[in-house]
Amino acid sequence: MRFDMKECIRRTKHGQPLTKAQITGLVRGVTAKNPAEAIPDYQLSAWLMAVCLRGLTDDETAVLTAAMRDSGQTMHWEMLGGPVCDKHSTGGVGDKTTLILAPIAAACGVYMPKMSGRGLGHTGGTIDKLESIPGLTTALEPDAFLSLVQRAGFAVAMQTGDLAPADKVLYALRDVTETVDSIPLICASIMSKKLATGADHILLDVKVGSGAFMKNDADAAELSRLMLTAAKADGRDCTAVLTDMDRPLGMYIGNALEVQEAIAVLRSGGDPELREFCIDMAAELLAMAGKGTYEACRSQAAEAVASGRALEHLRMMIEGQHGDPRVTEDLSLLPSARCSRVFCADRSGWVTGMDSEQIGRASVLLGAGRMQKKDPIDPGAGIVLAAKYGSAVQAGDPLMTLYADTEAMLDAAEHSLRTAVTVSETAPPAQPLIRAKYSGRELT
Amino acid sequence: MRFDMKECIRRTKHGQPLTKAQITGLVRGVTAKNPAEAIPDYQLSAWLMAVCLRGLTDDETAVLTAAMRDSGQTMHWEMLGGPVCDKHSTGGVGDKTTLILAPIAAACGVYMPKMSGRGLGHTGGTIDKLESIPGLTTALEPDAFLSLVQRAGFAVAMQTGDLAPADKVLYALRDVTETVDSIPLICASIMSKKLATGADHILLDVKVGSGAFMKNDADAAELSRLMLTAAKADGRDCTAVLTDMDRPLGMYIGNALEVQEAIAVLRSGGDPELREFCIDMAAELLAMAGKGTYEACRSQAAEAVASGRALEHLRMMIEGQHGDPRVTEDLSLLPSARCSRVFCADRSGWVTGMDSEQIGRASVLLGAGRMQKKDPIDPGAGIVLAAKYGSAVQAGDPLMTLYADTEAMLDAAEHSLRTAVTVSETAPPAQPLIRAKYSGRELT
Repeated sequence: MRFDMKECIRRTKHGQPLTKAQITGLVRGVTAKNPAEAIPDYQLSAWLMAVCLRGLTDDETAVLTAAMRDSGQTMHWEMLGGPVCDKHSTGGVGDKTTLILAPIAAACGVYMPKMSGRGLGHTGGTIDKLESIPGLTTALEPDAFLSLVQRAGFAVAMQTGDLAPADKVLYALRDVTETVDSIPLICASIMSKKLATGADHILLDVKVGSGAFMKNDADAAELSRLMLTAAKADGRDCTAVLTDMDRPLGMYIGNALEVQEAIAVLRSGGDPELREFCIDMAAELLAMAGKGTYEACRSQAAEAVASGRALEHLRMMIEGQHGDPRVTEDLSLLPSARCSRVFCADRSGWVTGMDSEQIGRASVLLGAGRMQKKDPIDPGAGIVLAAKYGSAVQAGDPLMTLYADTEAMLDAAEHSLRTAVTVSETAPPAQPLIRAKYSGRELT
Repeated sequence: MRFDMKECIRRTKHGQPLTKAQITGLVRGVTAKNPAEAIPDYQLSAWLMAVCLRGLTDDETAVLTAAMRDSGQTMHWEMLGGPVCDKHSTGGVGDKTTLILAPIAAACGVYMPKMSGRGLGHTGGTIDKLESIPGLTTALEPDAFLSLVQRAGFAVAMQTGDLAPADKVLYALRDVTETVDSIPLICASIMSKKLATGADHILLDVKVGSGAFMKNDADAAELSRLMLTAAKADGRDCTAVLTDMDRPLGMYIGNALEVQEAIAVLRSGGDPELREFCIDMAAELLAMAGKGTYEACRSQAAEAVASGRALEHLRMMIEGQHGDPRVTEDLSLLPSARCSRVFCADRSGWVTGMDSEQIGRASVLLGAGRMQKKDPIDPGAGIVLAAKYGSAVQAGDPLMTLYADTEAMLDAAEHSLRTAVTVSETAPPAQPLIRAKYSGRELT
């Protein structure tokens, strides 16, 4: 039977679920080259808006995710002969978790062949961060990528258009038609790529708070549930951790700055809260991969950091991707910005708010991020926090240092940061970074 | 300030009203040739879907209507020196009201320079009906059109793309994106063209029932209210009459067949209910145009029919549009179909249902209408009813006669009509054709 896009739009518009054949036909039409099969943009965008306003069922979301996964290449890792893991963050400010967690996991005997993206808007991307390391490339041939994963336990390549190409088309359309903020569509976009990447165990870091796409716990929990359902439908082991993004993660924001902080953590230094968080996340992943109980895995992860073995895996990866491996010993080899300015507290008290969206946007103004896909970025630009949520400060104490290429950029960022930090007279309650945890194994 | 379509989509999606500048910018972008100003189809269709699911306020609808009116030519009729009227039907089955009402109104001293369209789907169009008259053209030069209106009191031209061109673009997009059924969008589509046509007094015939776009009284009343509001915002005198389309109007359905019935009515024959309805509608229009009280206008209209003056005006119009005026005296000059078949009652009782949508669809199968814009039509094809809602019939009595070019078309239509007529054991309650009436003068 001929595929009928108008019927699909009509059903979704009236809240009637699509059949599996309708969803797969729709996704086929997204990337079809043949004009008889291709679905015009204007019909896709009407359908996307109907999805935003009427939703999709869990089954429809899982079928959509699988169809988008199958729209391009799917990767397989049986040749590694060991547990293959992946981690995905929904995007945050100061989120260098991958740079710390992947070497720890690799040092503990699991494989992480990681496909990552660039940053966009106020959130950063792992590819941009790694490319701040002199010489490092993320455009690896498949053979070189595989051989590096075998050697170092992990490697990080730029995600290509061959992976879930239907998502690429739909995402570009969603971006210009105000149809990004649909939880089923976000699920399908993330999970189609994760499932195509072929890991057995997938750890999802769902950021929630002012600096994240999910602004509240209910939305983040709903997204988690949908992603776990789509993973389970594909026979994958998946856990979602809801983590706080009302404040930046760690103390460093910016590309080379975040590499610095990651290396510091792997050298048993850096922000203790960030270090504990990465060890917690690594323990989750190792436990999923069958490396023992959560507590046993946590000990293994902590030992990998304390012993320097995780740092050694990072060094191997950097070297394998043609970067300068000496950065792991000498942070001064990383690029740095020409200008800097200290931003101070204007009153004494406790830091009760550290708005991560405002801080992320300020880092873009400093040159650390991009608003448009083609914007260049300044690898040395960014922000180093001197205080964090819960810190006690005196008026005049530094709150953060801004780094940029010009004084004008510092002016713009400083101006935009005026209300980013709240200092109050009483100390705020402790807020754990991990807010909740959902396992796909517990889905009914 | 630069026009921001994403902001418009976002606001409508979240139920926030657009500003007047946003709506006019949007409509400008619909027809803009300049790529910097033109809004891509995929953004328009996302917005149209958001309108379908979130609605527009009354003010937004009136502003949208006015902006669409101003997207092309607007017509002016001061040179006629008398009241200028228009009538619009939202589309029905067997609706030949214009062919009867316009000559009556013209005979009573008002002008009706009428712009009409072709039929689409199961509803007919005045242009197709008139073009079944041998020689008649509806493609008139502006001067010829004006001079005919001056002479005959009315003329009927095919609506051109110069009138509300933004509606043409939006309608084509709505048709392929399942965004037709939004009452604010239907209002803007109809009224932008009506207002551009320039009449002072506008009578809206809002069809309601199975054969109409508005399936229930509540939707029809809402559409009426919005259309009256948009007309009032433009300073026009407007009345909306809700009329029954659960059953066809009159006894004849099809192009030449409806011309036949219209001429019969103007010769004081035909279906009495149709004749009374047209005299009622003419009285409404004459009263709006200041020709006296409703009762006085009704007498004038009835007299125009009884005296043959209305028929004479129809004859003048046909002659002025190069049609054969002898059809008003000799119906055999109209085209007729080659084949016919009588469709009979299979039981005795009263006709309690005469499904106008099914009958309209059967007339399309017979060749009287088109499903696609480019389909040809057969002017002689159609249906003549032998019984109507409320008629008493015996088993074996004819219910209707079908007319078409081939026996196969008769087979298909007959098959599709099996459940169109309901015959029951008890007589149905009387159902007046006019269900309600709303005047723009009573809007608060």
